[in-house]
Amino acid sequence: MGNCMGIRNFCDRPKNTNVRWRLPAVCFVWQLSMIILFGVFDVHVMIFVGFGFLMTFLKRYSFGAVGFNFLIAAFGIQWALLMQGWFHSLDYTDGKIKIGVENLINADFCVAGCLIAYGAVLGKVSPVQLLVMTLFGITLFAVEEYIILNVLHAKDAGGSMVIHTFGAYYGLSISWVLYRPNLDKSKHLNGSVYQSDVFAMIGTLFLWMFWPSFNSAIADHGDGQHRAAINTYLALASTVLTTVAISSLFEKTGKLDMVHIQNSTLAGGVAVGTAAEFMLSPYGSLIVGFFCGIISTMGYIHFSPFLEEKLKIQDTCGIHNLHAMPGVIGGIVGAISAAAATNTVYGDLGLENTFDFTGPFAKRVPTIQGGYQAAGLCVALCFAIGGGIFVGLVLKLPIWGDPADENCFDDEIYWEVPEDEESVPPIVAYNNHMIPNKHQKEMNM
Amino acid sequence: MGNCMGIRNFCDRPKNTNVRWRLPAVCFVWQLSMIILFGVFDVHVMIFVGFGFLMTFLKRYSFGAVGFNFLIAAFGIQWALLMQGWFHSLDYTDGKIKIGVENLINADFCVAGCLIAYGAVLGKVSPVQLLVMTLFGITLFAVEEYIILNVLHAKDAGGSMVIHTFGAYYGLSISWVLYRPNLDKSKHLNGSVYQSDVFAMIGTLFLWMFWPSFNSAIADHGDGQHRAAINTYLALASTVLTTVAISSLFEKTGKLDMVHIQNSTLAGGVAVGTAAEFMLSPYGSLIVGFFCGIISTMGYIHFSPFLEEKLKIQDTCGIHNLHAMPGVIGGIVGAISAAAATNTVYGDLGLENTFDFTGPFAKRVPTIQGGYQAAGLCVALCFAIGGGIFVGLVLKLPIWGDPADENCFDDEIYWEVPEDEESVPPIVAYNNHMIPNKHQKEMNM
Amino acid sequence: MGNCMGIRNFCDRPKNTNVRWRLPAVCFVWQLSMIILFGVFDVHVMIFVGFGFLMTFLKRYSFGAVGFNFLIAAFGIQWALLMQGWFHSLDYTDGKIKIGVENLINADFCVAGCLIAYGAVLGKVSPVQLLVMTLFGITLFAVEEYIILNVLHAKDAGGSMVIHTFGAYYGLSISWVLYRPNLDKSKHLNGSVYQSDVFAMIGTLFLWMFWPSFNSAIADHGDGQHRAAINTYLALASTVLTTVAISSLFEKTGKLDMVHIQNSTLAGGVAVGTAAEFMLSPYGSLIVGFFCGIISTMGYIHFSPFLEEKLKIQDTCGIHNLHAMPGVIGGIVGAISAAAATNTVYGDLGLENTFDFTGPFAKRVPTIQGGYQAAGLCVALCFAIGGGIFVGLVLKLPIWGDPADENCFDDEIYWEVPEDEESVPPIVAYNNHMIPNKHQKEMNM
Repeated sequence: MGNCMGIRNFCDRPKNTNVRWRLPAVCFVWQLSMIILFGVFDVHVMIFVGFGFLMTFLKRYSFGAVGFNFLIAAFGIQWALLMQGWFHSLDYTDGKIKIGVENLINADFCVAGCLIAYGAVLGKVSPVQLLVMTLFGITLFAVEEYIILNVLHAKDAGGSMVIHTFGAYYGLSISWVLYRPNLDKSKHLNGSVYQSDVFAMIGTLFLWMFWPSFNSAIADHGDGQHRAAINTYLALASTVLTTVAISSLFEKTGKLDMVHIQNSTLAGGVAVGTAAEFMLSPYGSLIVGFFCGIISTMGYIHFSPFLEEKLKIQDTCGIHNLHAMPGVIGGIVGAISAAAATNTVYGDLGLENTFDFTGPFAKRVPTIQGGYQAAGLCVALCFAIGGGIFVGLVLKLPIWGDPADENCFDDEIYWEVPEDEESVPPIVAYNNHMIPNKHQKEMNM
Repeated sequence: MGNCMGIRNFCDRPKNTNVRWRLPAVCFVWQLSMIILFGVFDVHVMIFVGFGFLMTFLKRYSFGAVGFNFLIAAFGIQWALLMQGWFHSLDYTDGKIKIGVENLINADFCVAGCLIAYGAVLGKVSPVQLLVMTLFGITLFAVEEYIILNVLHAKDAGGSMVIHTFGAYYGLSISWVLYRPNLDKSKHLNGSVYQSDVFAMIGTLFLWMFWPSFNSAIADHGDGQHRAAINTYLALASTVLTTVAISSLFEKTGKLDMVHIQNSTLAGGVAVGTAAEFMLSPYGSLIVGFFCGIISTMGYIHFSPFLEEKLKIQDTCGIHNLHAMPGVIGGIVGAISAAAATNTVYGDLGLENTFDFTGPFAKRVPTIQGGYQAAGLCVALCFAIGGGIFVGLVLKLPIWGDPADENCFDDEIYWEVPEDEESVPPIVAYNNHMIPNKHQKEMNM
Repeated sequence: MGNCMGIRNFCDRPKNTNVRWRLPAVCFVWQLSMIILFGVFDVHVMIFVGFGFLMTFLKRYSFGAVGFNFLIAAFGIQWALLMQGWFHSLDYTDGKIKIGVENLINADFCVAGCLIAYGAVLGKVSPVQLLVMTLFGITLFAVEEYIILNVLHAKDAGGSMVIHTFGAYYGLSISWVLYRPNLDKSKHLNGSVYQSDVFAMIGTLFLWMFWPSFNSAIADHGDGQHRAAINTYLALASTVLTTVAISSLFEKTGKLDMVHIQNSTLAGGVAVGTAAEFMLSPYGSLIVGFFCGIISTMGYIHFSPFLEEKLKIQDTCGIHNLHAMPGVIGGIVGAISAAAATNTVYGDLGLENTFDFTGPFAKRVPTIQGGYQAAGLCVALCFAIGGGIFVGLVLKLPIWGDPADENCFDDEIYWEVPEDEESVPPIVAYNNHMIPNKHQKEMNM
């Protein structure tokens, strides 16, 4: 594009002044693309390391957490690139699919929804089911995203509605359909050990650190992007403190619970997603983070058991507390702050830029925009719950090789798991005979 | 937007001279802000993953290391943003606090000092004490930084004086006041296990890799920034080799000690901090790294025990070897290399840019600057030791819930720690009954 | 440079138009340097965290994997900076070595070759041997790179030939010369445990995520750089799926093998290295990734044992499957896609830019270029095998302190390894007396 511009100027101007237009244009285009190029890797880190390790907290399901997360993401981004291509060709009536770096980011975003959903069924489904779940998930995501962002023209920079609300309720609905009454049979594995909790913190921290770039990655003008980064940063910071406070408050003797630190500390980033690029102001972000830390942690303490007992929804990672509730809050905050937007705060151009009141939407005013934001939230919920129930029924078919109730949360079922002899001193291990494991097989088969 | 630009200057030719100024300006401003925006995430990684995991080496204090590091940082950056705001309003007599991305970096820098201090008291204080320590630490930091950088106009790109010297002696002074004569009671936990040493290496490597961006993050002109990155890179590289050499030299049978590799390999980055943006020249950086590797490793072998026995300073992570000594060396190197700076090496403009000999400081010459650098080092030491002793006395009050001597270095005190059954084969674990742990509680309470 | 340009313009032009040239120039230069500056850190992550943790899969060699990887890299980048300096002075007849950020990236690239080679001899050599291996490896690398890229003028953006083919066959040749017939004596340690496999996944994921920036780091014009990133991204994505498919297909009961997921999922990035910046088209990249996933995984299942039994090559990490075969494939793909390049696909300028058909190479046509690409592959193989055998013979000398056959894959030999008592409840550990370990020594010597 820098090229064709350069060429255009080339024709209609004397040679020596060309650079005046071409050079800045190249700088500009490159700058934009580099922003995106680095953005995509940051987001990449969240998808592969962040989500992957966040789910390693289970004592014997770390391979499944990291490995299947890897599989879902690698398949999902490819499928997402195709879906996007088709939907964009709807816009521009251009049959060919072009892949730019922007598409890679969007692909990561699509995948995020499915990885969130994975959290609800972690340890209870087979890799085949996960692939099916991802296939439908990406497809549903592409449609709801298209409706929310293009048709309703709602804004959702950080994807509180499009990604988190959708992904979470999609997963929870599937988990509801796949309810296992006898899951207690494998309850001895449905918990963490010391090391696995430390591994999970790797996921937490990488998600926490890069969340600002996630929320600001697609906010495409400088101001909006900085606002998004800063608002997210502040919301996340305040969430950490309230999470620690509530966790300590409700545990006996004020001890902290690692599961809260691993998850609820991220809730602020989810909730500030939609409104991130709006003028939320620092204290607005801090307040959002403050309450989400409370709600999310309380969710783990009181609401997860209720979901399990009463609503028959088994939510392995507690995504309802980390993504579902904060996502909905984010959608509502977005709708309110959009409806409350005024020229005095944004300035005429600011309002126009932030909400893109241009072209067919030139006549929109903030209050109306607020309504469309709310409508967007409903669309996300409908697609999530409807789609989730449908996919859940598909996954109920007895052909997918899912584990028995007593084998849930166990890597042994889908992975070659090496013998554990961590604590056996090498010399002893050397003396006693043991089944050669995979690496040895390679060496001496 | 690249588009509309092409279109704009295409159609209305008269207005075309506007873009000549506006467009490059936008490129320029964005470029700067993106540099900072990415800088902040790199620094983020050091603060949350780097410092957090570096302290996980203790066998039963990984939750405390990563978790409390997370808590301190999340609280600290918020408090730091406020402190900065107030201090900048001192400069510009502007009552309102504006938060830009630059502030986020500076906030990370403030926090770094407190996380360094945490290393000295790791495992021996309560989270409440840590928060108090952070509150005062950030405040002291803001004042000493203001005096050193703004009043004395000393340069300290990588914060050898402002961050490392201050943070280390602040923590050591606190540890000295909180001296525990009977700490041996929990000495069985004051050591590492195999896995915890590997976790600590995650911290080491992320600190090592991003140190060049840490030292160059606030060096704000292209040349200085590249110099800072390259000098740091070289200093760190040479430190690794000397650390390995000394570690092997002083251990029986030439074995390497993981604690040296985890820590001393970073000393070069600390020591080159102040002088990073000066014309230190590659071999200058290599020499600084070379000696710091030696001094830091020797410190672990000979000086830490001495600190413990004679000076009654218990330094859990050995920050005296990683931050205190290298920080002071860095300050001295900075003072000397500033005093030795000449027009022939920097060029007239170079000298002016590097040391900002402008405005009120227009008349300064390198020799004088060297003096002010030395003064800056003294200021850092005074604030650190004075402030540390005061805060230490505050923390001695019996109201903060700190652990008993026999419970130090133990996550059990402040965390819900899951049962460890790593090495018990799942089938056994399945047969015997165990206390349901946190995740199970959620599932069946 | 932006500076001197500014100054030049300053003299020979009326004042008001200065900025027109200087400001865009500064933007432009800075943009380029920032691209590189961030590129270098991304690549850094692969070198230190990626390669380091990828090799931690062995149950008792994690210290050696991360620690020696760290040592090799830190020494290697320094030696590489010197080698580069000398070779570039060959070009410009300029005696002085200047270090720019570009050099840091190239240094990381040189080191990558040696780290790949380390994978073949992991656990079987002493740190001294590793340093010797690195010294020669970097030297050989610098020569073969100079011949391939500057003399033959072959293109190799991602280093399929220059880095992977060379590094892998260099390591395999050394391993062949150092063949240990009685390696079975330490076979009890030549395998993984649960935690070590999870640690290895940290390496895998960081390599996987940043591979696109690795392959695009030195592709220096915007278009080529984006193509390189996108092609690599797609190749990697498809590799993951085929790896999972083959791994499940050949394991009994369709279980997945962690060693395949850890390694073969990266093969696509290796194979697409040379052709990454060419117009491979999305499906071209997907196809390359598809077949490399199959070949690499099959290699682990069938070829590694064959190498061990018949060819007497003991390849600890299976680099033959991850780097050697995919590297050669990459070289061939590069040669073919270069020979097949046409103006219709690239456009006149595109062809010229992509292959740098300028200066002495102005007359080259794609078919000829294809020939030179193939020649480049041969050069890489000759240097690797020839150099490897020579270095292997040097390392066979009985002066390097390498481990006995029964002590291979054991950190105990070169590291102070802490007692493991992970699974002993603290209270027990507290009652029984134990040998004070390193940290305790510090506390009470």
